[in-house]
Amino acid sequence: MLFQDAVKAEQRAIKPADMKRCASLQESVRRSGLQDGMTLSFHHAYRNGDLALNQVMDTLAEMGLRNLTLASSSLSDCHAPLIAHIRSGVVSRIYTSGLRGPLAEAISRGLLREPVQIHSHGGRVNLIASGELHIDVAFLAVPGCDEYGNANGYSGEACCGSLGYAQVDAQFADRVVLLTEAILPYPHSPASLTQDRVDLIVRLARVGDADKIGADTTRITSNPRELLIARRAAEVIAASGSLIEGFSLQTGSGGASLAVTRFLADKMRARGIHAAFALGGISSALVELHEQGLIGSLLDVQSFDRKAAMSLARNPGHIEISASQYADFYSKGAVVDRLDVVVLSALEIDTGFNVNVLTGSDGVIRGASGGHCDTAAAAELAIVVAPLVRGRMPTVVEAVTTCITPGSGIDILVTDHGTAVNPSRPALAQRLRDRGIELVTIQWLYERARLLTGDPRPVAFTDNVVAVVRYRDGSVIDVVHQIAE
Amino acid sequence: MLFQDAVKAEQRAIKPADMKRCASLQESVRRSGLQDGMTLSFHHAYRNGDLALNQVMDTLAEMGLRNLTLASSSLSDCHAPLIAHIRSGVVSRIYTSGLRGPLAEAISRGLLREPVQIHSHGGRVNLIASGELHIDVAFLAVPGCDEYGNANGYSGEACCGSLGYAQVDAQFADRVVLLTEAILPYPHSPASLTQDRVDLIVRLARVGDADKIGADTTRITSNPRELLIARRAAEVIAASGSLIEGFSLQTGSGGASLAVTRFLADKMRARGIHAAFALGGISSALVELHEQGLIGSLLDVQSFDRKAAMSLARNPGHIEISASQYADFYSKGAVVDRLDVVVLSALEIDTGFNVNVLTGSDGVIRGASGGHCDTAAAAELAIVVAPLVRGRMPTVVEAVTTCITPGSGIDILVTDHGTAVNPSRPALAQRLRDRGIELVTIQWLYERARLLTGDPRPVAFTDNVVAVVRYRDGSVIDVVHQIAE
Repeated sequence: MLFQDAVKAEQRAIKPADMKRCASLQESVRRSGLQDGMTLSFHHAYRNGDLALNQVMDTLAEMGLRNLTLASSSLSDCHAPLIAHIRSGVVSRIYTSGLRGPLAEAISRGLLREPVQIHSHGGRVNLIASGELHIDVAFLAVPGCDEYGNANGYSGEACCGSLGYAQVDAQFADRVVLLTEAILPYPHSPASLTQDRVDLIVRLARVGDADKIGADTTRITSNPRELLIARRAAEVIAASGSLIEGFSLQTGSGGASLAVTRFLADKMRARGIHAAFALGGISSALVELHEQGLIGSLLDVQSFDRKAAMSLARNPGHIEISASQYADFYSKGAVVDRLDVVVLSALEIDTGFNVNVLTGSDGVIRGASGGHCDTAAAAELAIVVAPLVRGRMPTVVEAVTTCITPGSGIDILVTDHGTAVNPSRPALAQRLRDRGIELVTIQWLYERARLLTGDPRPVAFTDNVVAVVRYRDGSVIDVVHQIAE
Repeated sequence: MLFQDAVKAEQRAIKPADMKRCASLQESVRRSGLQDGMTLSFHHAYRNGDLALNQVMDTLAEMGLRNLTLASSSLSDCHAPLIAHIRSGVVSRIYTSGLRGPLAEAISRGLLREPVQIHSHGGRVNLIASGELHIDVAFLAVPGCDEYGNANGYSGEACCGSLGYAQVDAQFADRVVLLTEAILPYPHSPASLTQDRVDLIVRLARVGDADKIGADTTRITSNPRELLIARRAAEVIAASGSLIEGFSLQTGSGGASLAVTRFLADKMRARGIHAAFALGGISSALVELHEQGLIGSLLDVQSFDRKAAMSLARNPGHIEISASQYADFYSKGAVVDRLDVVVLSALEIDTGFNVNVLTGSDGVIRGASGGHCDTAAAAELAIVVAPLVRGRMPTVVEAVTTCITPGSGIDILVTDHGTAVNPSRPALAQRLRDRGIELVTIQWLYERARLLTGDPRPVAFTDNVVAVVRYRDGSVIDVVHQIAE
C-alpha cells in the first residue's frame, strides 16, 4: 500500500467501526472512562438469572474502582455478591426498583451508609431524563449483537426478550458497553439497541440464564388459596364493567396475579370478548392467549420467562416497548395511561388501601416497587390480590410498614376472606353488589386478620434511614428505617 | 357517576391519551405553543410529492405568525408557495439540505435576507443534537397513526416508507405534531415514531402523494449517455477490488447512479457475489436485488419510490434506520462508516475533485447536499458519475461554483469521455490499470470539456450571501452568492 492510500486507510482506522470490540471487561472499563465516584447502570431483564452484573462489579473491584453509584433497574437474590463490594467501598450508592435476598437483608441492617433510592419502573425514566440520575457508563447484557452494536434481546441462547429498560439507559448514558454472548453478522436486525447508541462491545461466555427469568415471581401459582383469590379477582373484574370488547389489562408479577389471567381468559371466551392489549411484564400465559387470538397485542417492557422472550421474535403483535413508553409519568404518552385493568400484588395493604410491596412485616426489604404505583395511579381499575394472612402475619394492616402505592390509586382488594372496595369509589362498589359480588369493608378484613393472627408485635426500627422510596413523579413518598437487632 | 368517581375520572381527563387529537391544523398550532420567531421542522420523505408543508405554512400565515425559522430536512419544487411566505415575513430563516425550482431560483436572487443554511443529511442530525438548530415544533407527515401517535411510514395510501429523518425530529423537538391521513387502531405497530414522542395529532385529507416520491431524481435513467457512464462505473467498481463477497454499496439519487446498480447486479450474478447491505435512499431497483437474494439487507433512511416504501412493510431484511444511524459524523456508529462503495452524482466537479451538487453553472441553486459529503468522506470507494458536458456547459471545471464535497473524499470520476482517479490514490489507479481500465487525468477531462464547450462565461455574483454550506461536521465549507441580474 502506498503512502497516500495509507493516509486514507489510517484516517479510517480511528472510526468507531473498528473500535468497539474489547478483548476483556477490563479493557471496556478502561476505554469507557469509568472512574471513582461515577455512576454505572444495568438492566434487570434476566431477573434472578442475571450473570452480567456480578462479573462487571468483580472486575471493577479488581481494578480498584471505588465510591461508585450503582443504578440497576432492579436487583435480585443473585446479586448478593454486592455485599462485599459495598463493604469494601467499591459501591457507595444504589438506585434500584427493588432488593431481594441477602443483599436486601444486609442493607436493611445498615450495610450501606447512604440510603438506597427505590424507584418505580416509570419513575426511573424520569430520574434519568431529569438528570438526577446521570449514567456515566451503562453495561447492558444482550444475548447477541453485531460488531457495531445492533442488538435485540432474543437472538441467542441468553434469550431475555424485551430490552425495554436497557433502551432508556442506551439513550441517556454517556457511554454504553454491550455485554454479549455472541457476535452476529452485520447488520443485525431488528435492533432494539442501535449502533448509534453503543460505544463498546465485550463478548462474555455468559451474560444471563434465560431459564431463571421466570423462576421466582413470574410463574403461575399452584397454591389453592392463591388460585381461589385469582378466581375471585376474575369474577370481580367481570362484574366491574371493565370486561368489555377491546379492554386492556396488566397482571403484575406474583403467582396470584398471573393466575387471574387464566381465569379471566375463561370469562373472555365465554363472553366472546377480546382484549386490545396486555401490558407490562409479559408471561408465556399471556403469549398463549395472544396466539389464541384473545389478546390483540402484547406490549412488552420485560419478558417474564424464556417462552415469552422467544415469542417476541416470532409474533408481530408481540411488541417491545421502552420503559418510557411503558410508564414514565412525564412521557408524552405512556401505555399505563390507556390501561383499563391492572392486577397487583401486595406484601401489606392498610385500611387506607396504601400498599407495601417492598418490605416484609419484619421490616426487612424483600421486594420491588416495579410498575406498582405507575399502573395503580394510571389504570381505570386497580385491583390488589393478596391472602389475608401469610403464616402468622397479617397482610391487611392498620398502616403499611412502607408505602409504595398510595391508597388513592387502589380501587379493590381481593383476599381469600373477602373483597373490599375503596370507599372513594362508591359507584364501583354499587356496581359490583348489583352483579352479585359480596363485599366487606377493609376495616372488616383488618379486624378479621387481627382475629387470626393477633396484633403483630411492632417492628423495632432505628433512626437510620436505609432506603428512600420515590413515587413515580420523583417525590419522596416514604423511607425505610434500619431494623433494630 | 358519583362525585368521588368523577374526581378520579376528571384527573384522568387531563391525561395525554385524551388530548392528542386536534380538530384542525389551527388547533394543533395553537396547542403546540408555536410563536413568532420560533423554529418548526418537516421531513422530506415525500420529496416532490409532499402535501403537508404548504398546508401548515398557509395555516401559520393565516394565523398571523411571523419571523419563523423553517427547518425541513429538504425542500423541492413543490414548495414554491414558500416564496409568498418569505415575502410576507412569515418565514425569515431556512435550514435545509437543498432547494429546487422557483423557490431556489428566488432565493438565488436574494429573496431571503438571511442566508439559507445548507446541511448534509448527517450534518443536520448534529445541528439539531448540538442545539444550534433547536426545533420548537416538528410537523411530521405520516400515512397513518393511532390516536396516541404510534406511526410508521407504510400503513396507508400515502406510503412513504422510511421515516428516518422524521425520527430525529421526533426525538429532539420540544413539541411533535403528527399530520396523518388515517387514524388506525391502537396500538399501531411497528411504530417508527412512538407515542412517547408525540404531542398532538391532526388528521388531514392528504399529506403526501407517494407516486411522486420517485418522480424526479430517483428514477433509473433511459438516457443512452447516462447508461454508458453507469456501465463504465460498474466496470470500474468491479476492477477496483471492492466487488467482493459481503461488500456494501450506496447509489445516490440521480438517474445514472441508480443505473449503476443494475449493471453491478449483472457482475455480481456473473461472479456469484452477494452484497451484505445497500444503504441510503432505497429504490425499487435495490428492493428487486434484495428479493433476488443479491443484497442481504437494505438499510433505508429514505424510500425512493412507492414500491420501495411498500417493501419496508413486507421484507424483514429491509430495515428502517434514522438519519443518526445513517450518517451523523458525531454518531457512535453511522452506517456510512461501514460503506465500501458509494456512487454519487455531480452538477460540477473540478480538477481538485471537489464536487458541487447544489448550484448550476449559472450560479442558481438547483440541488441538495443530501448524503453526498457524508458518504464520500466515509466510504472506502467514492465514485462520481457525470457526463463531461451538459448541453453547452462543462461538468468538469477548473473550480466548482459551490463546494459541497471536498475532493479529498472523492476517489474516481467516471464520465462518458473517460475515467479519472484522484491523484492521491495512486495504488487504486494502478489496480484499475492492471485490470484493463483506461484512465485519463482529470486535467485531460477538463481540457476536453473546454474544447467541447469553450470557456464558460463566468457567472456574475453580487456580494450578498444567499446560502451558507455546512460540511458534515458543522463547519462552513462554502457560501453561495446572489446572482447578479
